[in-house]
Amino acid sequence: MACSRVCGVVSSALLDYNTSKLVHIRNQKIGLIYRLVQLGVIVYIIGYVIVIKKGYQETDTVLSSVTAKMKGMALVKGNHTDAIWDVADYVVPPQQTDSVFVTTNAIITENQTYGVCPEDSYVAAGSCDFDADCPADTPVRNGNGWRNGTCDNSTHTCFIYAWCPTETDVGPSTPLLGDDPKNFTLFIKNNVQFEKFHFHKSNVLEATSGVNISFLRNCTYNASDPQFQYCPIFRLGTILDEANEDYEPIALKGGIMGIFITWNCNLDYSTSHCEPKYKFKRLDNAKAAIAPGYSFRYPIYYFVNGVKYRQLVKAYGIRFQILVSGTAGRFSVVPLFLNIGSGIALLGISTVLCDLLVLYVVKRRKYYKDNKYETIEDEEALFGPKEKNLQDYKKVEE
Amino acid sequence: MACSRVCGVVSSALLDYNTSKLVHIRNQKIGLIYRLVQLGVIVYIIGYVIVIKKGYQETDTVLSSVTAKMKGMALVKGNHTDAIWDVADYVVPPQQTDSVFVTTNAIITENQTYGVCPEDSYVAAGSCDFDADCPADTPVRNGNGWRNGTCDNSTHTCFIYAWCPTETDVGPSTPLLGDDPKNFTLFIKNNVQFEKFHFHKSNVLEATSGVNISFLRNCTYNASDPQFQYCPIFRLGTILDEANEDYEPIALKGGIMGIFITWNCNLDYSTSHCEPKYKFKRLDNAKAAIAPGYSFRYPIYYFVNGVKYRQLVKAYGIRFQILVSGTAGRFSVVPLFLNIGSGIALLGISTVLCDLLVLYVVKRRKYYKDNKYETIEDEEALFGPKEKNLQDYKKVEE
Amino acid sequence: MACSRVCGVVSSALLDYNTSKLVHIRNQKIGLIYRLVQLGVIVYIIGYVIVIKKGYQETDTVLSSVTAKMKGMALVKGNHTDAIWDVADYVVPPQQTDSVFVTTNAIITENQTYGVCPEDSYVAAGSCDFDADCPADTPVRNGNGWRNGTCDNSTHTCFIYAWCPTETDVGPSTPLLGDDPKNFTLFIKNNVQFEKFHFHKSNVLEATSGVNISFLRNCTYNASDPQFQYCPIFRLGTILDEANEDYEPIALKGGIMGIFITWNCNLDYSTSHCEPKYKFKRLDNAKAAIAPGYSFRYPIYYFVNGVKYRQLVKAYGIRFQILVSGTAGRFSVVPLFLNIGSGIALLGISTVLCDLLVLYVVKRRKYYKDNKYETIEDEEALFGPKEKNLQDYKKVEE
Repeated sequence: MACSRVCGVVSSALLDYNTSKLVHIRNQKIGLIYRLVQLGVIVYIIGYVIVIKKGYQETDTVLSSVTAKMKGMALVKGNHTDAIWDVADYVVPPQQTDSVFVTTNAIITENQTYGVCPEDSYVAAGSCDFDADCPADTPVRNGNGWRNGTCDNSTHTCFIYAWCPTETDVGPSTPLLGDDPKNFTLFIKNNVQFEKFHFHKSNVLEATSGVNISFLRNCTYNASDPQFQYCPIFRLGTILDEANEDYEPIALKGGIMGIFITWNCNLDYSTSHCEPKYKFKRLDNAKAAIAPGYSFRYPIYYFVNGVKYRQLVKAYGIRFQILVSGTAGRFSVVPLFLNIGSGIALLGISTVLCDLLVLYVVKRRKYYKDNKYETIEDEEALFGPKEKNLQDYKKVEE
Repeated sequence: MACSRVCGVVSSALLDYNTSKLVHIRNQKIGLIYRLVQLGVIVYIIGYVIVIKKGYQETDTVLSSVTAKMKGMALVKGNHTDAIWDVADYVVPPQQTDSVFVTTNAIITENQTYGVCPEDSYVAAGSCDFDADCPADTPVRNGNGWRNGTCDNSTHTCFIYAWCPTETDVGPSTPLLGDDPKNFTLFIKNNVQFEKFHFHKSNVLEATSGVNISFLRNCTYNASDPQFQYCPIFRLGTILDEANEDYEPIALKGGIMGIFITWNCNLDYSTSHCEPKYKFKRLDNAKAAIAPGYSFRYPIYYFVNGVKYRQLVKAYGIRFQILVSGTAGRFSVVPLFLNIGSGIALLGISTVLCDLLVLYVVKRRKYYKDNKYETIEDEEALFGPKEKNLQDYKKVEE
Repeated sequence: MACSRVCGVVSSALLDYNTSKLVHIRNQKIGLIYRLVQLGVIVYIIGYVIVIKKGYQETDTVLSSVTAKMKGMALVKGNHTDAIWDVADYVVPPQQTDSVFVTTNAIITENQTYGVCPEDSYVAAGSCDFDADCPADTPVRNGNGWRNGTCDNSTHTCFIYAWCPTETDVGPSTPLLGDDPKNFTLFIKNNVQFEKFHFHKSNVLEATSGVNISFLRNCTYNASDPQFQYCPIFRLGTILDEANEDYEPIALKGGIMGIFITWNCNLDYSTSHCEPKYKFKRLDNAKAAIAPGYSFRYPIYYFVNGVKYRQLVKAYGIRFQILVSGTAGRFSVVPLFLNIGSGIALLGISTVLCDLLVLYVVKRRKYYKDNKYETIEDEEALFGPKEKNLQDYKKVEE
């Protein structure tokens, strides 16, 4: 009331409200399509985006640290003497991030030192019949050393400068460590954090949570038993069974097993519902055309009277790779509103679709078109020669 | 003018412009709500999406390579003789990707070889009173070997086939390496690339940048001193302090420290503003119910008269894990336009909201409804029996 | 017909269809802008989002496992005797995840044992002129041990408790392993999975695919030869060439080479089109101000008459880091519809832009404004004092 005229114009410009003028078409067929598309969009937004995909939550991805520790021993029956392989012997290297390698089979070549000896007869490029087949100072392709120019008539392989004696690169027909590795256990400690929610948890229950420690120490994971499905100690045999892999082939030639730990946590519920899920899957290709399996060589060096010797171990085994993923969600208004907003925008699709039908498909499209559109003449045409229209316009304005 | 009639129809269809007819409602209350919602959306888009979240930039995530190198020595007072532990001794394995392990404590078992000896008395499953408690050729659970069938009356543990003597698995009460590891330094070289922007940088300044090399070589990182906050050499003690961890417990039992390097670069500014930020946090759970800390065993093999011996080291220590993350942004019109576009779409929410008020809530909703909607009759009803409406329509068409 | 009145009202509310009333403006200039903006949006949506960015596909990111295996030997000419370095000697540690280190150069210090000896003369902090320069029981900064209080007059360095003799930390002027590492080969096995599409593939062709196994075993990768561009065996020299790195500098000081494997698969085509692409790039900064290159130290321990000795190796070399990335896409209606939907929403921008022109810029804006807006009076003004308007309204309603 006390507002001046300028103030009124401003408040009118600021506070008036514009809404589209709608044409309400009473056509049940088009209306049905219109409502069905709207229903589809609403079901998609509410049912799928908001309820199933939890569109009302903001999310954070997991930050994880993993340590893995093997336990168990294998009794290896040797030619001369038996031997025990314990963790220090079969885990190589002794620690890795997110990964553990367990030796299950090995070719061990003793007492190697630098010298001249015949090439391994399993190396194709090392075979010879005459000295001429062994050009001096040339390396043997995929072999163990440099030819010295002479052929060994007994083995029909070239003499080479190499770590001698050379390894005979044929694996044993049964795994060196036998079936004992099946009973090895892998203890996985996995701590996860969701930084955005200041939430952290471990797959091993904490000392304060009143869990029975002796139970934890002696349990082993069992997917089908609810009591043991959160036990962080995994029998190797169980891991292979869960992944549908036979022990013998993977123990002989080696392979890579993935241990997938998934943390999908809905933090709107109690945090005790936030539990890891374990999944096991072989990652390498057992049917590879060349060099299937997983193996590598390492030396154990020693000195005898100042001369360097080594024991060469070609280790076959299973590399366990621990892959942690996860998402946590918690209610937040921002994603909820954004999803509702984009849902409302999507509702526009129903209008676009029905407009196409009404304007271009149905029989009486011209009638609808004329009612939907209100035509305004071109300025020039209007304000140029034709004064009549302008008068019409002025009339409207009055 | 020279344009034929067909041409005119086409140009009319192509060049005419359609805009929604709007109903302008002069209601200050609704208008106020309308403008407030619009204001909210505009503030959200401009203030949050564009300014704070830098919606005018396209972004790229970091591609990183890390090497970490320890320096420092510890003087270990031994029973028989002192010993120096240098980098080659305490970093196991000698190189890893994105990770360094520093031994701070160890249980060392000397002169192990394969034989028969009593089980470690700390292994529960190895205790016995009679030979009957030691069934022959059975492994000791969580122990070191296979029982041979007899009980050692002096230690009350079973005799086992094992690496003998067995390890006594009780850690020392103070870290073997003492407090010296606190003064070890970790030199981190971190090269990052943002491929989309052809930008690369290192946390160590380049030789060409005229930085004082002797300063770089001798500095140590200090978060609170601007001169030293970009120094890439970190004292172990400083890392633990920054993470609020005490040295003694983590040195005794081991643990995992995360070193987070974050590169958040706004490449619209000078590249000298693109600097790494360091954060330190313990990643494992010091309060785990079982097996807290971080340790592993490794062997040092040697031969005496052809017999394989080993020194067994159970190493406790700190694994430093370096986690690099980062995003760079640079002005680009595409994300700016997309954000403005989605902002305009979001503005529609204000209309939808006010329409709901106007059509379903306010007192005079019928009045507004009748003005917003323009009703067209059903085709059939229209063109079927009722000819009158059609005449009306025709009248409109003229 | 049989429908009651209530039913009719409901069906009317449910099945009637609302569409915006549009004002059709015949102005060629505005119309041209309107159509150009629309065209731009359509070209963006169809050309860029749908065709180029494959907006009609749902995508999945790669899950990968990598093993890398070196082959090759180097013949090292020694002072006293030559020596062969094979895989077991130069790959340290023997196995790593996604990474292989190849020694190309080394400083080897023999026969170290714990004792007292002069500090390495290359350690600045270890130099002295008098005993007073060597305070007893203080560590030498960046050195090898603790000073014992006396100065060695011959070397002008302090006597220290250390592993003696100390290492002379100056690398040889040519790589210890010579040029032989150029001919080492790296065999990379990379298995990838796209879980969403139940698709897996290897960079090594499978035994069942009828590929010539002997070809695979003997080929080496060659980017420019189509026959060899999918061969999984890489010559070290080729990797360096492709990355434009010279062998000599990186072999002397060490470095980190990234091997990027990219799988971008369009699963709408035959899976034989899903092939890895290899790219090679140096990841570390060869021009770093301090400590350029890549090196680390490791010990080889041995015992002589019960005394622990070690051979200390400072290894320089190339760390190959294998980084796998990839995305697979396959046709799906959901992303196609979402992109079309958001495209339709973006079309609104053309109307908003032209409205701005029509309502605020062009000369006859008032005329357009009056035609676009249909003004409704404020409720109060309307239903309060002025009854006349209400009558008008009632008239409209009839």
